Amino acid sequence: MKFTFQNTTQLIFGAGTLSQLGEVACKHGKKALLVTGGGSIRRNGTFDRAIASLNAAGVSVAECSGVEPNPRLSTVVRGAEIARREGCDVVVALGGGSTMDAAKVMAAAFYYEGDPWDMMFHVEENRKAPDRALPVITVPTLAATGSEMNGGAVITDEKTTVKSFVISRCMYPQTAIVDPELTVSVPKEQTAFGICDLITHVTESYFNGVDGTPLQDRFAEGVILTAMDWGPKAVVDGNDLEARAQVQWASVVALNGWVQVGTNSPFPVHMIEHSLSAHHDIPHGAGLSIVNTAWMRFAARTRPARFAQFAERVFGLSLKHPEDADAAAEGIDRFEAFLRSIGCPARLSELGIGDGLLQQYAQDALLLAHDDKGRLPGRPAMSEAEIVEVLRSVL
Amino acid sequence: MKFTFQNTTQLIFGAGTLSQLGEVACKHGKKALLVTGGGSIRRNGTFDRAIASLNAAGVSVAECSGVEPNPRLSTVVRGAEIARREGCDVVVALGGGSTMDAAKVMAAAFYYEGDPWDMMFHVEENRKAPDRALPVITVPTLAATGSEMNGGAVITDEKTTVKSFVISRCMYPQTAIVDPELTVSVPKEQTAFGICDLITHVTESYFNGVDGTPLQDRFAEGVILTAMDWGPKAVVDGNDLEARAQVQWASVVALNGWVQVGTNSPFPVHMIEHSLSAHHDIPHGAGLSIVNTAWMRFAARTRPARFAQFAERVFGLSLKHPEDADAAAEGIDRFEAFLRSIGCPARLSELGIGDGLLQQYAQDALLLAHDDKGRLPGRPAMSEAEIVEVLRSVL
Repeated sequence: MKFTFQNTTQLIFGAGTLSQLGEVACKHGKKALLVTGGGSIRRNGTFDRAIASLNAAGVSVAECSGVEPNPRLSTVVRGAEIARREGCDVVVALGGGSTMDAAKVMAAAFYYEGDPWDMMFHVEENRKAPDRALPVITVPTLAATGSEMNGGAVITDEKTTVKSFVISRCMYPQTAIVDPELTVSVPKEQTAFGICDLITHVTESYFNGVDGTPLQDRFAEGVILTAMDWGPKAVVDGNDLEARAQVQWASVVALNGWVQVGTNSPFPVHMIEHSLSAHHDIPHGAGLSIVNTAWMRFAARTRPARFAQFAERVFGLSLKHPEDADAAAEGIDRFEAFLRSIGCPARLSELGIGDGLLQQYAQDALLLAHDDKGRLPGRPAMSEAEIVEVLRSVL
Repeated sequence: MKFTFQNTTQLIFGAGTLSQLGEVACKHGKKALLVTGGGSIRRNGTFDRAIASLNAAGVSVAECSGVEPNPRLSTVVRGAEIARREGCDVVVALGGGSTMDAAKVMAAAFYYEGDPWDMMFHVEENRKAPDRALPVITVPTLAATGSEMNGGAVITDEKTTVKSFVISRCMYPQTAIVDPELTVSVPKEQTAFGICDLITHVTESYFNGVDGTPLQDRFAEGVILTAMDWGPKAVVDGNDLEARAQVQWASVVALNGWVQVGTNSPFPVHMIEHSLSAHHDIPHGAGLSIVNTAWMRFAARTRPARFAQFAERVFGLSLKHPEDADAAAEGIDRFEAFLRSIGCPARLSELGIGDGLLQQYAQDALLLAHDDKGRLPGRPAMSEAEIVEVLRSVL
């Protein structure tokens, strides 16, 4: 293990903490760009409570509403323009992962010279990383992406249907206000997709990270076990605030770096899913549910011991030997059954996706990330044909 | 769960990272107060390599050497005076937990008006918390305390033999350079005490934290399991760099807040042990080994389910029912056997401590922390008589 780690975000966690938004924001200035997604936060009162807290602390608001589920480059440009025009001092993201991602890139785009798309990782040669951003405060209304406490964001260029990402020190939120009360109104399906999303964040590094990170393995298993214990309760009864809190806490930890630290892991399942959702605008978590289990069956062929460990520690299966491929397969089956039990899909057809663009998705994924042999980084690295094979297995 | 968390320390981890000390330090200025403990780092070359790295980056050094195993208030005062006299810009702690703790308090004492003892937690009414400190860089040479990546420190007032602690935002190190190569020369006994120390950090919050923190439970179990897997290897072969790295990584995580977050846990075993080591200058980890298992047997009487979970998840024992007191007891026995197997003591007599001052230790522990009924905070809270009883059980 050799790595550098730093996560400077202040985390304020707990039911009712939304009321602290104003006092947190006013440390950064008098005017906030309030970034939001759809209309649900207006219907359930969250929006009004956020505004009231900000105004009570002397912070006025410029709005950028309507961030899409897979946030678009044009939305980022629009938000940055509002922030500049209105002279905003701080960006407040109130919404799900898309809203938070868009808000973080808006905060960087505020100072960025040139096209914000040039800060994304798809343009390796001409890429100009952002080095400065407005302070960001995240207030997630969905337990899923973990975007509230990291420096990453995923944006889609709607003109080219390419979905890419950026990670920058300057984009770490100053403060994440994580209030599980804001998630009680999330519908069952979105709740389930969020659970799948958070679990996939840790399976990526668990299965694709470097060898020799046993403590990170335990942490990943801990996140999965906790999400599997509490997730179904949150799906069954959305008003179960305890379950909502445990799921949301797991979602924060799943991608704030504590599990991935030192694993130096690529995220092949995300790369493949991003290509799907860029084309079809499907919920990210739903796409992950399908791709992740299909990918696991593919990867288990070359690394049965790794998947056998997963089967043993997460599902309590007994191994005949450390490379027990049957136990490995059984663990993946049980994992898929868990995802199905909470309402996640297992086949592309369930999302209305056919076999027409399989090669295109594979090519797009390879555009996002590839090694010097043109393969998608991961364990194992995948050729275009292998990505197509994985997707074809779950049509 | 309701909590606030922030740990801003930059962590640089890996074999060979000591060489980065100079480039890290020179960001903070031209002159470093280099705080060190005993002579081992001079004999094994670590000291010279640190100086060379600092000097190569244009950083000159003022030295404060000879920090004791249980660092004294007078040493803190001496270090702060050197830093002021020499106009130091940054404090570099090169040593074990004592050295790092002393260095952090020196950094705060640099700006502190009045007696540095007044920043400690023993003086509740007149306490004046520090709010500013010189930047600190920690370079641990022992895997144990986790002091390298948190804002806490423990200091002994040698005049009164009271050992107290301080935790402050301003005392979080700017950077922790954690280089497992520096630990390969640590003798077997100190290695074992360090393993016990790090495990005790997570058992404290596991057994004394609030209910309803299942993910933190998993993380704590992960730290214990990793330390138990790799610790014995590091004890048997000190040159096993992989084992040294895993143990040291576990020691960082055991007290950087990732496991304790949201548990709001008192540390009763530490309070009792601090009283012992303040009087007898015993190694902290050795004292913890004795006190922790004795305390566990005491606490398991009132919370068998908690200790049964520990027995099940850490030692793989089967439970007859969730409150299985026999399994709980068996788990504690196995834990003690593990500590004994790596060379940790289980009886006070092994450290030359008799029954002459039992009441004094209990009173001192209660001076460090007590609730409104005069009991030591923990689950359960302990009266003076109960602390004496626990210590008497391991004479």
